Amino acid sequence: MLIFDDRTKIVFTGDSVTDAGRGRPVGEGLWDGVGSGFVRDIDTMLNVYYPEKLIHIANTGIGGNTSQNLLDRIKPDLLDLAPDYAVICIGFNDVWRQFDTPALVTHHILPEQFEKNICAIIEAVKDNVRKLIFLTPYYMEPLKEDAMRARMDEYGEIVKKCCEKYDVQCIDLQKEFDEYLKYRHSSFIMWDRVHPGHVGSMIIARAFLRETGFDRQLV
Amino acid sequence: MLIFDDRTKIVFTGDSVTDAGRGRPVGEGLWDGVGSGFVRDIDTMLNVYYPEKLIHIANTGIGGNTSQNLLDRIKPDLLDLAPDYAVICIGFNDVWRQFDTPALVTHHILPEQFEKNICAIIEAVKDNVRKLIFLTPYYMEPLKEDAMRARMDEYGEIVKKCCEKYDVQCIDLQKEFDEYLKYRHSSFIMWDRVHPGHVGSMIIARAFLRETGFDRQLV
Amino acid sequence: MLIFDDRTKIVFTGDSVTDAGRGRPVGEGLWDGVGSGFVRDIDTMLNVYYPEKLIHIANTGIGGNTSQNLLDRIKPDLLDLAPDYAVICIGFNDVWRQFDTPALVTHHILPEQFEKNICAIIEAVKDNVRKLIFLTPYYMEPLKEDAMRARMDEYGEIVKKCCEKYDVQCIDLQKEFDEYLKYRHSSFIMWDRVHPGHVGSMIIARAFLRETGFDRQLV
Amino acid sequence: MLIFDDRTKIVFTGDSVTDAGRGRPVGEGLWDGVGSGFVRDIDTMLNVYYPEKLIHIANTGIGGNTSQNLLDRIKPDLLDLAPDYAVICIGFNDVWRQFDTPALVTHHILPEQFEKNICAIIEAVKDNVRKLIFLTPYYMEPLKEDAMRARMDEYGEIVKKCCEKYDVQCIDLQKEFDEYLKYRHSSFIMWDRVHPGHVGSMIIARAFLRETGFDRQLV
Amino acid sequence: MLIFDDRTKIVFTGDSVTDAGRGRPVGEGLWDGVGSGFVRDIDTMLNVYYPEKLIHIANTGIGGNTSQNLLDRIKPDLLDLAPDYAVICIGFNDVWRQFDTPALVTHHILPEQFEKNICAIIEAVKDNVRKLIFLTPYYMEPLKEDAMRARMDEYGEIVKKCCEKYDVQCIDLQKEFDEYLKYRHSSFIMWDRVHPGHVGSMIIARAFLRETGFDRQLV
Amino acid sequence: MLIFDDRTKIVFTGDSVTDAGRGRPVGEGLWDGVGSGFVRDIDTMLNVYYPEKLIHIANTGIGGNTSQNLLDRIKPDLLDLAPDYAVICIGFNDVWRQFDTPALVTHHILPEQFEKNICAIIEAVKDNVRKLIFLTPYYMEPLKEDAMRARMDEYGEIVKKCCEKYDVQCIDLQKEFDEYLKYRHSSFIMWDRVHPGHVGSMIIARAFLRETGFDRQLV
Amino acid sequence: MLIFDDRTKIVFTGDSVTDAGRGRPVGEGLWDGVGSGFVRDIDTMLNVYYPEKLIHIANTGIGGNTSQNLLDRIKPDLLDLAPDYAVICIGFNDVWRQFDTPALVTHHILPEQFEKNICAIIEAVKDNVRKLIFLTPYYMEPLKEDAMRARMDEYGEIVKKCCEKYDVQCIDLQKEFDEYLKYRHSSFIMWDRVHPGHVGSMIIARAFLRETGFDRQLV
Amino acid sequence: MLIFDDRTKIVFTGDSVTDAGRGRPVGEGLWDGVGSGFVRDIDTMLNVYYPEKLIHIANTGIGGNTSQNLLDRIKPDLLDLAPDYAVICIGFNDVWRQFDTPALVTHHILPEQFEKNICAIIEAVKDNVRKLIFLTPYYMEPLKEDAMRARMDEYGEIVKKCCEKYDVQCIDLQKEFDEYLKYRHSSFIMWDRVHPGHVGSMIIARAFLRETGFDRQLV
Repeated sequence: MLIFDDRTKIVFTGDSVTDAGRGRPVGEGLWDGVGSGFVRDIDTMLNVYYPEKLIHIANTGIGGNTSQNLLDRIKPDLLDLAPDYAVICIGFNDVWRQFDTPALVTHHILPEQFEKNICAIIEAVKDNVRKLIFLTPYYMEPLKEDAMRARMDEYGEIVKKCCEKYDVQCIDLQKEFDEYLKYRHSSFIMWDRVHPGHVGSMIIARAFLRETGFDRQLV
Repeated sequence: MLIFDDRTKIVFTGDSVTDAGRGRPVGEGLWDGVGSGFVRDIDTMLNVYYPEKLIHIANTGIGGNTSQNLLDRIKPDLLDLAPDYAVICIGFNDVWRQFDTPALVTHHILPEQFEKNICAIIEAVKDNVRKLIFLTPYYMEPLKEDAMRARMDEYGEIVKKCCEKYDVQCIDLQKEFDEYLKYRHSSFIMWDRVHPGHVGSMIIARAFLRETGFDRQLV
Repeated sequence: MLIFDDRTKIVFTGDSVTDAGRGRPVGEGLWDGVGSGFVRDIDTMLNVYYPEKLIHIANTGIGGNTSQNLLDRIKPDLLDLAPDYAVICIGFNDVWRQFDTPALVTHHILPEQFEKNICAIIEAVKDNVRKLIFLTPYYMEPLKEDAMRARMDEYGEIVKKCCEKYDVQCIDLQKEFDEYLKYRHSSFIMWDRVHPGHVGSMIIARAFLRETGFDRQLV
Repeated sequence: MLIFDDRTKIVFTGDSVTDAGRGRPVGEGLWDGVGSGFVRDIDTMLNVYYPEKLIHIANTGIGGNTSQNLLDRIKPDLLDLAPDYAVICIGFNDVWRQFDTPALVTHHILPEQFEKNICAIIEAVKDNVRKLIFLTPYYMEPLKEDAMRARMDEYGEIVKKCCEKYDVQCIDLQKEFDEYLKYRHSSFIMWDRVHPGHVGSMIIARAFLRETGFDRQLV
Repeated sequence: MLIFDDRTKIVFTGDSVTDAGRGRPVGEGLWDGVGSGFVRDIDTMLNVYYPEKLIHIANTGIGGNTSQNLLDRIKPDLLDLAPDYAVICIGFNDVWRQFDTPALVTHHILPEQFEKNICAIIEAVKDNVRKLIFLTPYYMEPLKEDAMRARMDEYGEIVKKCCEKYDVQCIDLQKEFDEYLKYRHSSFIMWDRVHPGHVGSMIIARAFLRETGFDRQLV
Repeated sequence: MLIFDDRTKIVFTGDSVTDAGRGRPVGEGLWDGVGSGFVRDIDTMLNVYYPEKLIHIANTGIGGNTSQNLLDRIKPDLLDLAPDYAVICIGFNDVWRQFDTPALVTHHILPEQFEKNICAIIEAVKDNVRKLIFLTPYYMEPLKEDAMRARMDEYGEIVKKCCEKYDVQCIDLQKEFDEYLKYRHSSFIMWDRVHPGHVGSMIIARAFLRETGFDRQLV
Repeated sequence: MLIFDDRTKIVFTGDSVTDAGRGRPVGEGLWDGVGSGFVRDIDTMLNVYYPEKLIHIANTGIGGNTSQNLLDRIKPDLLDLAPDYAVICIGFNDVWRQFDTPALVTHHILPEQFEKNICAIIEAVKDNVRKLIFLTPYYMEPLKEDAMRARMDEYGEIVKKCCEKYDVQCIDLQKEFDEYLKYRHSSFIMWDRVHPGHVGSMIIARAFLRETGFDRQLV
Repeated sequence: MLIFDDRTKIVFTGDSVTDAGRGRPVGEGLWDGVGSGFVRDIDTMLNVYYPEKLIHIANTGIGGNTSQNLLDRIKPDLLDLAPDYAVICIGFNDVWRQFDTPALVTHHILPEQFEKNICAIIEAVKDNVRKLIFLTPYYMEPLKEDAMRARMDEYGEIVKKCCEKYDVQCIDLQKEFDEYLKYRHSSFIMWDRVHPGHVGSMIIARAFLRETGFDRQLV
């Protein structure tokens, strides 16, 4: 049974995977306010399949954000919006910058710092919402010996570990993509193996809905 | 069981409801080539839920088209693309122009002509594809005494009648929206009651998938 | 006899119906400063038919405004401009958001609050101008069982009630459109049933001029 | 009584005064297709005051045209559109170029040629329409000793003379503006004394409607 | 003999006639910094004919300015630039607004106020520069019975009177245009009779250079 | 005495030095039709100083043209315009490409070919106009040992030689710039030493007017 | 010793890796005419290190091209330009489309067809140039079990095989990138593993120069 | 041996030669953050040839800067970025403005002031970085009697003198260009003789790398 109650509010936040061109300052309401990514897919699916429930969805993801950036703005961009439910997907840029701009070492968020940031975010949010849900970062690369995939797995484990510690729900997106990549090459979803495009967004939305109690027939 | 076979091609055509900003000259392939409307939703859902099947989807809808415009271009924009399956959604503009530009009477496609056009399209396409599917035009207005709704119903009936005559599958989209509008006001979907937006596109996609044998669990 | 005296100033304010692309910060003067909606039609008609009178018209409507937004800016955008006459048309968005974004319940202005806002606006303005005129919000939908039409009627009644209470002139625009819609379908005026376009703007201007004493022959 | 019958078509043609940003190739239908000048005002007024009549209005004015340009395209842009009524307003550029680019003498249309062109236009159109109406060119300059005003008067007389010869209705716009300019300076209407802006367009529309039998009360 | 010494600075200020698209915040230096109007013509002529003299020219005209606007910014935009010579051309908008927006009476600068402003500007500038030069506003209309021409003459007289009172040089631009308009119609220079275009700018530059001692042969 | 008669036409053609953003297809008439370079300066000066003469000026320069390009289009772009006077300035690109793209040898117009082209142009034009005038190409570099300056001198000599052979007037622009560069560095006129900017354009115009009989006082 | 002689011409052609925003119709000459990719790096390096040699470089790559597209335009875009040397880099899109748009099977160029196309290109070009050089397509992915890498290797082998058969020089770019990817992750060069960016372009240029006899000291 | 250590940071600063469209506020990281000039070439070459070293390159050049501007922002734009190595190239605009805008004398930085500025910059930076390197300004003009070349030589000497005084490394770019200009005309590199374009940027990068110990084989 869908865990989101009627007339409640869910705020999604994170980086470009979440952002997806959302409106500013808060991504909500008319005209693609929630962006064109997985948040929109979730919004659309809830509206189509649960028309009797009114669920207010808002998006405050910001492209390029690391866990540090998110922590720094967690009050205005999450807590001040007074969500009933909070959904956070962060960590891509913490990892990616170590590979695409390896020389800018002062900009990198290393595992120790990442863990501190995730824990700090959880502590700031947890008791202020009815429920907090984390989505792990992922890399759409099925070969685990790839250096960035390996690093991303490490960061995904940190997210899972922190969530476990504070008893926060955590949805493993890497697992979803690993399953899908048995059928299609990563370049089918997106050349850069990070931004999810239409297919990847729906894969994320599917996982999210499944793990939050979606119980309608598709057709 | 999904009626579309692996490694086959479906061409969708019609007006702006189908078009939705598709690529030119043929809407297919990378970068929203199929547009951002219900065709994309169908494409996405098939790719997400049937990753083991490769289904080539193309879109040749053109915004503003009437049944007459479509008939005039049926060869280059449908037959020449050699689809295995053809899906057609037409009639909105045939009706709408009678209401938003009532004085331009020479531009109106009246019922008799509409019926001739639909039949001519069916005759041109039917034997050249494995399967032809029509989607009825609709008006997102639940009150049947509204003049445009009444007229649209008349045109929808013509589509259904022609399809029956030639034994062509016809999916009644008006019924889908009537059901949905029990819960939400039309302005939630789209202020103009015609263009489907994200929610309406998914409603169309849902009906289409259900009627073409979609058989996977959503979550 | 025209109630507006020579060398006086009328300020119109409200939402997008009033705004219509007016100049910023104050919509007045050269180059469509007053916008391209009903305010311009009124300005044009007064200039054409009463060339011997100089009437300064200014527009401070802001698209998307509710009665709450208008109340919050009533001092800088109306009182500080020192109008002799003030004309206010508000309430569309108070109603519309309840239908097009029903889940964003915290953004909705419900009837009780709407009534408070209208009264507060009247109290703030009434004694600071020679005359205050309200225009009721409307919905270009003739079928009264439409949910949004019904709600708009409720809000229109509140405007009328408040005006009566404070002895403020109130022009019923819904009645004007109801009359017109006996001849044409709403989609002839505007697909969204709210923004008035050229025909609807002239209908509003006609009602306004009639109720303010216009007494010239049209031709 | 309005001379235009229900379900008939009026085509307006001429230069930029008529054009006013109309749609291409034919200015008609949705979205300011008829432009934003006096043709739109006429269209709006007929729709507002005669909602029971459906009058198809089209505009084929082209900015910068002289009588020669118009004559050269009279078939595709007027006759081929099969109007019931034709309205022509031409001559501004025939005169203006003699003053703003006096050295480009080979581009000027002198009186003798202008008269030939007007007569040729009348002969081409007259028997192919139910009624042909000319609007004289004008110069928004009340001082008749101004050289361009004097020249424009000369061209206006030619239009009137030709119309009289062929028994075609001719509406004297110069007279309308002369009356208005007793109250306001030309720069109030438009700095260039030619393009009519909102006020001038309504003045033209008013004259046109009066001379074609408009018989409704304004308010 | 040219009154401007080598290695000195001239600042021109005023309204759009001076501005002509100059650079911001100060119009000087490379790439049309001085705008494309009469200031540029003066700059070009001095550079071409007096290459042995280095004269720093700057332009701080702002389109739409009245004498009031100029007075309000005389310190930052003229005095603070420490010119050796100051050239001011103002008054067009003081007059024009009385004719093109006659109803906005609170925006008009009437003669009494204009005279006060001009005197205040002179008093602020006079003793801070080596020489102050005024250019009278003008209207490119040879018929003195035109209402705006008459009003402009009145304002030109005020400029001359103030200059005389403080012993400031004043160049009568109206006289220059009156002479030129014996040969060409105002629409040859500019349709609006105010902005000088290429020919009018050179006429102003010619007057300015003549009155400041230009003594080179053209060829 | 000015050699150009009243009511005659001068066509200027060449490359970007002449073109300067002129209108297409023919650069003439309103709105900077003649471009913003030396042709405009000549046009402006003739209009300001000889208001009693009407001289039709047209410009068909095309940026990047070599003598070969010009020869290839001499009929449509010069002869077909039926000028009374023709003015040609060509050769910059014939030389420049040898220096800025030295490896593209097949694109270079070498001296022998250049001479053939100039002679062919003269032969095509000479007897079809009242007078033909050539302007030599130049390089704004005073040091004759510069390789490009030396090459440009060679091409300038070819132009002069051809003109002498056919008794065509030739104005030596290099001499004009050499004189000016005694006072200012080339970078004052233009960083690239070819395009003349405002100062260089007026220098060209001055030379042109002097050599064609300009006889008015500058001030 | 550099194999390219003085005053000769090299034409590079292929797909987006070659194209890189080159000028149209032929990419050569001023202003990044050769694009901003590896062709420009080669052009720059030859100009910097061999200033005594003039080598005309042109680029006719077209983004998105497959071997089939290139074969179809080999005459106008390579042979008609009369190169002394021809350099071809093709095959990326033949492979990529099989992975990013797997359902569009009719658009795929399979190995057999690819081999035919490469051979046909070689046969068309070989005897018309002094030297033909092929660059193999590559995938910036070091893990050979990646499906697209494996497929790209297959196509690279075909290129090498065809070159061997006709005795054409072939430079193995995959080997170059494999070497580099020992140090950096592919996302350092480009997220999509195909377009080379600045670092990848220089890697290609380095390989090209080494294999064509570059013999200068870098510093 | 390359003087730059692994995991260190180099900040380049100066004017447009350095800037070259870099990112703001600091030019570093993804997407041409370092600009498209010589800094990018250095970045690319170090990455290609020393993939085992991670060197963080940042660019804070600002187009149009003089030594005065640079001195004024040396703290935020250089010191606060905590570079290990600092590279400065300044002086072009100090000289250029004396030639292209000779009349704006108050904007010129004369030799005495330039020397003070360079020394002040050195004093501010020297002890805060591991190594400071200056690049002399240059003028791509081989003829030393050119006035601007002579002036630039004077400024280059000042840079060298200051560097010598403080024992700072100084790379003489003028010498590099002088050598190259023996083969090609300045217009091959850039028409304005200052901005280096692709070839000039690589010439600067080559000099820089040679003087900082680059020791790899090019091919």
